[in-house]
Amino acid sequence: MIRDVAVAEPQGFFDRTLTRLRGAWRDLAEVAAGAVSGAQLRPDLPREDLARVRAQMQDCLARKGGEVSARARAAALGRTYLELNGEGRLRFLRLLADEFDTDGEAVREAAAALLSAPDADARASAEAALRQALEPPRMRLLTQFNALPNGTKFLVDLRAEVIDLARENPVLKPLEADLRRLLASWFDVGFLELRQISWSAPAALLEKLIAYEAVHQIRDWNDLKNRLDSDRRCFAFFHPRMPDEPLIFVEVALMSGLADSIQKLLDEKAPVVDPATADTAIFYSISNAQRGLAGISFGDFLIKRVVDELSREVPRLRVFATLSPIPGFRAWLETQIAADPDLLTAGEAAAVTEAAGESDTVEEPAASLGNLLRLALWHPADPATEALRRPLMRLAAVYLSREKRSNGMALDPVAHFHLSNGARIEQLDWLGDVSAKGIARSCGLMVNYLYRPDEIEANHESYRGERKVAMAPGFRSLVRG
Amino acid sequence: MIRDVAVAEPQGFFDRTLTRLRGAWRDLAEVAAGAVSGAQLRPDLPREDLARVRAQMQDCLARKGGEVSARARAAALGRTYLELNGEGRLRFLRLLADEFDTDGEAVREAAAALLSAPDADARASAEAALRQALEPPRMRLLTQFNALPNGTKFLVDLRAEVIDLARENPVLKPLEADLRRLLASWFDVGFLELRQISWSAPAALLEKLIAYEAVHQIRDWNDLKNRLDSDRRCFAFFHPRMPDEPLIFVEVALMSGLADSIQKLLDEKAPVVDPATADTAIFYSISNAQRGLAGISFGDFLIKRVVDELSREVPRLRVFATLSPIPGFRAWLETQIAADPDLLTAGEAAAVTEAAGESDTVEEPAASLGNLLRLALWHPADPATEALRRPLMRLAAVYLSREKRSNGMALDPVAHFHLSNGARIEQLDWLGDVSAKGIARSCGLMVNYLYRPDEIEANHESYRGERKVAMAPGFRSLVRG
Amino acid sequence: MIRDVAVAEPQGFFDRTLTRLRGAWRDLAEVAAGAVSGAQLRPDLPREDLARVRAQMQDCLARKGGEVSARARAAALGRTYLELNGEGRLRFLRLLADEFDTDGEAVREAAAALLSAPDADARASAEAALRQALEPPRMRLLTQFNALPNGTKFLVDLRAEVIDLARENPVLKPLEADLRRLLASWFDVGFLELRQISWSAPAALLEKLIAYEAVHQIRDWNDLKNRLDSDRRCFAFFHPRMPDEPLIFVEVALMSGLADSIQKLLDEKAPVVDPATADTAIFYSISNAQRGLAGISFGDFLIKRVVDELSREVPRLRVFATLSPIPGFRAWLETQIAADPDLLTAGEAAAVTEAAGESDTVEEPAASLGNLLRLALWHPADPATEALRRPLMRLAAVYLSREKRSNGMALDPVAHFHLSNGARIEQLDWLGDVSAKGIARSCGLMVNYLYRPDEIEANHESYRGERKVAMAPGFRSLVRG
Amino acid sequence: MIRDVAVAEPQGFFDRTLTRLRGAWRDLAEVAAGAVSGAQLRPDLPREDLARVRAQMQDCLARKGGEVSARARAAALGRTYLELNGEGRLRFLRLLADEFDTDGEAVREAAAALLSAPDADARASAEAALRQALEPPRMRLLTQFNALPNGTKFLVDLRAEVIDLARENPVLKPLEADLRRLLASWFDVGFLELRQISWSAPAALLEKLIAYEAVHQIRDWNDLKNRLDSDRRCFAFFHPRMPDEPLIFVEVALMSGLADSIQKLLDEKAPVVDPATADTAIFYSISNAQRGLAGISFGDFLIKRVVDELSREVPRLRVFATLSPIPGFRAWLETQIAADPDLLTAGEAAAVTEAAGESDTVEEPAASLGNLLRLALWHPADPATEALRRPLMRLAAVYLSREKRSNGMALDPVAHFHLSNGARIEQLDWLGDVSAKGIARSCGLMVNYLYRPDEIEANHESYRGERKVAMAPGFRSLVRG
Repeated sequence: MIRDVAVAEPQGFFDRTLTRLRGAWRDLAEVAAGAVSGAQLRPDLPREDLARVRAQMQDCLARKGGEVSARARAAALGRTYLELNGEGRLRFLRLLADEFDTDGEAVREAAAALLSAPDADARASAEAALRQALEPPRMRLLTQFNALPNGTKFLVDLRAEVIDLARENPVLKPLEADLRRLLASWFDVGFLELRQISWSAPAALLEKLIAYEAVHQIRDWNDLKNRLDSDRRCFAFFHPRMPDEPLIFVEVALMSGLADSIQKLLDEKAPVVDPATADTAIFYSISNAQRGLAGISFGDFLIKRVVDELSREVPRLRVFATLSPIPGFRAWLETQIAADPDLLTAGEAAAVTEAAGESDTVEEPAASLGNLLRLALWHPADPATEALRRPLMRLAAVYLSREKRSNGMALDPVAHFHLSNGARIEQLDWLGDVSAKGIARSCGLMVNYLYRPDEIEANHESYRGERKVAMAPGFRSLVRG
Repeated sequence: MIRDVAVAEPQGFFDRTLTRLRGAWRDLAEVAAGAVSGAQLRPDLPREDLARVRAQMQDCLARKGGEVSARARAAALGRTYLELNGEGRLRFLRLLADEFDTDGEAVREAAAALLSAPDADARASAEAALRQALEPPRMRLLTQFNALPNGTKFLVDLRAEVIDLARENPVLKPLEADLRRLLASWFDVGFLELRQISWSAPAALLEKLIAYEAVHQIRDWNDLKNRLDSDRRCFAFFHPRMPDEPLIFVEVALMSGLADSIQKLLDEKAPVVDPATADTAIFYSISNAQRGLAGISFGDFLIKRVVDELSREVPRLRVFATLSPIPGFRAWLETQIAADPDLLTAGEAAAVTEAAGESDTVEEPAASLGNLLRLALWHPADPATEALRRPLMRLAAVYLSREKRSNGMALDPVAHFHLSNGARIEQLDWLGDVSAKGIARSCGLMVNYLYRPDEIEANHESYRGERKVAMAPGFRSLVRG
Repeated sequence: MIRDVAVAEPQGFFDRTLTRLRGAWRDLAEVAAGAVSGAQLRPDLPREDLARVRAQMQDCLARKGGEVSARARAAALGRTYLELNGEGRLRFLRLLADEFDTDGEAVREAAAALLSAPDADARASAEAALRQALEPPRMRLLTQFNALPNGTKFLVDLRAEVIDLARENPVLKPLEADLRRLLASWFDVGFLELRQISWSAPAALLEKLIAYEAVHQIRDWNDLKNRLDSDRRCFAFFHPRMPDEPLIFVEVALMSGLADSIQKLLDEKAPVVDPATADTAIFYSISNAQRGLAGISFGDFLIKRVVDELSREVPRLRVFATLSPIPGFRAWLETQIAADPDLLTAGEAAAVTEAAGESDTVEEPAASLGNLLRLALWHPADPATEALRRPLMRLAAVYLSREKRSNGMALDPVAHFHLSNGARIEQLDWLGDVSAKGIARSCGLMVNYLYRPDEIEANHESYRGERKVAMAPGFRSLVRG
Repeated sequence: MIRDVAVAEPQGFFDRTLTRLRGAWRDLAEVAAGAVSGAQLRPDLPREDLARVRAQMQDCLARKGGEVSARARAAALGRTYLELNGEGRLRFLRLLADEFDTDGEAVREAAAALLSAPDADARASAEAALRQALEPPRMRLLTQFNALPNGTKFLVDLRAEVIDLARENPVLKPLEADLRRLLASWFDVGFLELRQISWSAPAALLEKLIAYEAVHQIRDWNDLKNRLDSDRRCFAFFHPRMPDEPLIFVEVALMSGLADSIQKLLDEKAPVVDPATADTAIFYSISNAQRGLAGISFGDFLIKRVVDELSREVPRLRVFATLSPIPGFRAWLETQIAADPDLLTAGEAAAVTEAAGESDTVEEPAASLGNLLRLALWHPADPATEALRRPLMRLAAVYLSREKRSNGMALDPVAHFHLSNGARIEQLDWLGDVSAKGIARSCGLMVNYLYRPDEIEANHESYRGERKVAMAPGFRSLVRG
């Protein structure tokens, strides 16, 4: 749900000097809201109220009373939206989608005019006219919502809602596409600001990291403080009109050598590394924070700017790598087990059988990989775990490097993300994540993707062009078994 | 000319807390620039070099090496542009305009597909496809320029150059339109920040006020300081990505009663008014500072937000008015004199003749208004000036309120601006501006437009709808003569 | 223990404009430290090392190499101190106390000279000379420590250590007095900055509130967030050279009517009050955060500035009061019980006996107040608790208003603090604090002190002059029984 | 005159986070002022009004109504002072000096007690008591003035006034000494902040540089902008409670090789040097900005911190030197000419005579150095100027290195300053300053003092100890002639 968060104006750059002026829009909105709320709308927006909202939308578009008044009216309309319940919002959005779409007739006429344009000049004019005809009126209305005190965040959250609703209400899809076009323009990466987030950041911002962390849950404030310690870094992209809202953030550990276990890395009792002695930066978590910006991608930019930034700050750093989950591995593996009796090599199968035999709980002689997966304690001292090591490492390597989607891209989404960015697969980490989630999704495995600045461009091209997966020689041997 | 101004990053809002990260793009640009500048381009961009630039543009669009590399390459391309001379820039821009336009064939196909779409769903898809076909590739390239350290300002200044060049090179017009679309989206008024500018603002900003002031020239730093004194206010809109560049600014004087003379108002020796006793705010100068944003209008918003702001700060304020030039009056008047022998009423004509008779230098008996205009000393003690008073006041009132453009809007551009915004014409100020410019353009007259919050919307509607000019009763009498 | 906290420079006021210059002192200190640490000192500072430290101190005072070098050397000396253990520090401080005291002979000579001064002029000179002779050399050394990166905080923490050590080492007392004089000058209240602390403050600052809160422990981050909610305020004094260290802070709740229970007030699940509807501000916790500033008082200033501040922000506020513990009440009461058989009135005694009789666990017939105190469940439904109500309320009122120290001031330290500040005792709150601490120290009672701006000065004078305790009429009746 | 400048609060360090609270003191002052101004004081403070001021001072010291009220009353008293005219202020200050001095009797008793103290403990107590007796009551009053909104600046300016008045009113000298002690403690160098001042600094600050520059006058804003160009640096010390007031500032030019002419260095049309290619930093102007801090020295610290700072920013810098006037040279020379007929060597005398002969205007055959000094055009093409070169260079070298004050220190004040700081005399610059002032005071000569980090300490020691003047070998040859 969108909340009408109190507006925190971005801090002026010459603060003492120039007085920040706040709230003007708010007041305008209140003035205009007065007109509407004279007769309060009901939360579920029944038919009669809908008619009033429609009139209000039309007024906005007619720019009645000038652009400032129209903006104020749009702000009031936005405020109205915030007070609706689920049903009311759906009605509101359907109204926008249905009745404020392009004028089909006008579009067709403009298209016909283009087709009959006699020369280049006429074609150019016809293109301009057609472009304009294709701009639905609701697009201007959405832009006007930007006049809400917290307008940009409002539109981002609105898109998150529309994405959800559009699944069952396909009529909303063009509206969703409009919002995406609008936000893609406003959130051009040139407008984003990279900021480092430390333990000295506002608590009000830090609690958002706790809420938004999507990869390895932040348990509490101590866990968070540990992730912001002197051998850790956290960077985020912000938009100037949403200064308190991270768009995406990455957590990095500085250390010597590659990290091979997320539990070790997040251990609050582990000694702090002196950053000056570190040679490796491990990107162990990247989280998108705004659902409403889905499909507008910043992750690639973020990683590369952070690599630049860290190189500058800690010139000794030589290795930039991730410690990543393999989220699709276990699901894929279970399917393979079911489908392919020859999944294991003879040697692997023998070891699995032997390990299963040692286990008291495996009764059936035909001890299978599947059974062992369920039996394993995921601990180095456990024979079942040990027996799984070789086959799982080989199969995970196969999964990551050979399993493709129909378009030839890597099946695993995280692999696809880093390979697209020009990284290579460096190393598998056995028992790298023995949390319940890590076992359930990745059989406890993790993987390091390596970003080598001088190979990024070539890797990216080979992957995009020939679908070639870059990998370290050691990893390649694993794949070959 | 665009200068590659050193980048001033907007000040972070939690500065101690989060380290601002600068220059990353710059370095990327330098890396990529290396590739290009390997073989230096010549400033006038001859044919061979043009081929290389074309290839470079194509690389950007092919997203070779990923989006980050493409941005870096675009930055390098932008840097190249900055090093070209006039001829080189024209060639560069023609290349963009000619070869990176929409694909005519693809557009026609998409238009045809739309026309033959069998149902609503198909139409929606066809519209989306057509919209995409209408997006010229150069648009993406222009967006990528935003990755330049000072990218937004670069694009604003680029548009200023394209506007100029397009006058003699119509082939650039669609390129100019693309830039306008791009900037109109980015400079949506919801993104602008209103700031008050005082004498404590950075000198580097204040010198821009001196440079950009377009109405009443700021002579020197003393004049500027006087305009920022405790009974004056200056407000400007800024964009978060151009934090050191005012987009538009307005200068305001707080006083008791309407101002009727710009010379008195700008007198550095005049005593300072205690703002707490003021009842009137006079907007005496509004200047657009960025030619590259021509046609993207902020003036209306600025005035209304400043009215809000001042109402809050100085609750005693009752009157918000301008002290404005009448820039088209004298040119119009001279035409009228030539065309209309009965321009003056009999009484006026007599007075003019008498005044002319008193003047030693008027030899011809047929003393005319035209002659007297040239003779007048524009001083209250001068009989010629005095004789002009009545006829000029009446004619100026007629000019402002009755002379229209073909579309029915007011002929005088300043009058049109304020009437569109919902102001009314309040009062003419005889000898309100006796500077050379004031006499040459407005016969020394100035006018006050009055903004009455409760009438703004109605005035705007009447003017836009019925072309009705709002005016004070006193002014109306003047018109009637 | 003093920690060499990384220095956080205060944020510059025109940040973009003027580059903050950091670390210069640090480098100087390192250069100078080189010389000292050439031969590393041992942590317990044995005799030989002590000699070297003595020489180093003398060098500082001789200003060898100029004032800058002397400061650098003092910084190195400070760094040395930080690396000593407890024993070493004591030796270091004794050295300062013993050998860098005033020159007794010189002081006596100057005193004698003063006594024999023949006239006013000679007396003035003699006074100046005597004043200088009375300034011990260590004072200059202590001042030089201010050149440490975090010098002011260093000296504050040094005083905290000296205060502790001086208890068993009276030779350190004059050193402690010197530190106090130095800090009292630097921490003049004119230099302090009042800041409001909200949930948007840096986490690194907020965790200090958790650590420093001395009245009602902050349990965790949720408790803290609740205390910074929209109906709460927190204000602190800061010193410009210790910008990350609150000196003293106060927590305030906005509400309607007086608060009568700290448990209710701190209940995280209680609904948030709209500050605009509040008429009362309750100061429910004031904590000094720097032990090293003991005896340099800010509390009075803090309360009065916060009253001003809140009056401005929430003009509806009419009542400013505390919700305070009565920390000495129970200890005093137990003494009274032991000493005075007639402590209770007959009526009270009867009620107590009856309540004791109802309790199964009271075996002895001679049920006493003391027994009941131990039996009570401190819950309104408990008869024992209810029986205590009347006698405890009366006795607490007597304790607060009539029990005095030898100098005639109130015995209870919290009462003394607020009465000195000009507050009056307003109301006792039965079961106002039923925490273990509240019961153990205050028998669960709390008290509201009321600050009425127009009475503060008179109350203060009466209390200081005639030792008269200001109180509300209702409270006075309680005292009278 | 002290002006009651509007207070500009220092910018908070976590601005969005913590709300800056202003004006509280101001209001307190206003409240208290009410009491006083009930009967307005006259500007010259006649006897009757003086009595009222005395009573007011006594109230402050009696801490009537508590410390907060006392501060408020002191603020009101300070405000009163600001409204007095010259005569009134003198009376006010004499009152402070006369009647709020130490209690002579109490001092004598304390001195006697000290002399008869039987043991160490008693002596320590007696010293503390004596120290307290020596603290005049006005000292506490002065400290209370710090509660004025702009209190620190008030006291600094107050001292400037007292310094001036004390010349003719010796009774004020002890008061001046008190102020000096107070300010010396508050302006300890550990509290100062070094800031770089650029063209982006507030105009309100920059105009103070123009006003305060004491060495080479800043003609206008263009001259100032030139001094803040990319190859220039300006640094200043600030105090946290006077954030808009530079205490002392230095102007630096980055260049290749030593500067030998101030006119060339300040030429606005000279090309800008790329700082990255510079190897030399020339300190060409150091100005103290606060007369009220006379005798509290920062210059030595400033130079050394700026050397550190520049070394960090421009690592290629190898040479740190000044371009300095020789302000006492011409006056000394004229005295020498009058006193010493053998001032010139035979060869020098011959050259002087010859040059004088060439000049049409020298009539007397006995052409003297004195005459030639008056005739010279101070231009390289002028024979008289050329003839002066050798003798003046030699004599200036003698003046700088051999002429001493009675205490053995260098006679020239600028030489003394830099030699005390550990610099050496490097080189004389013929025609280095041909402004009227430069000719009148230094015969157009300038001198470079060189700061070599590894020699500073030794140079300082030799100069302070043995009065040895450090100089470059080339300069030494000059001295020897």
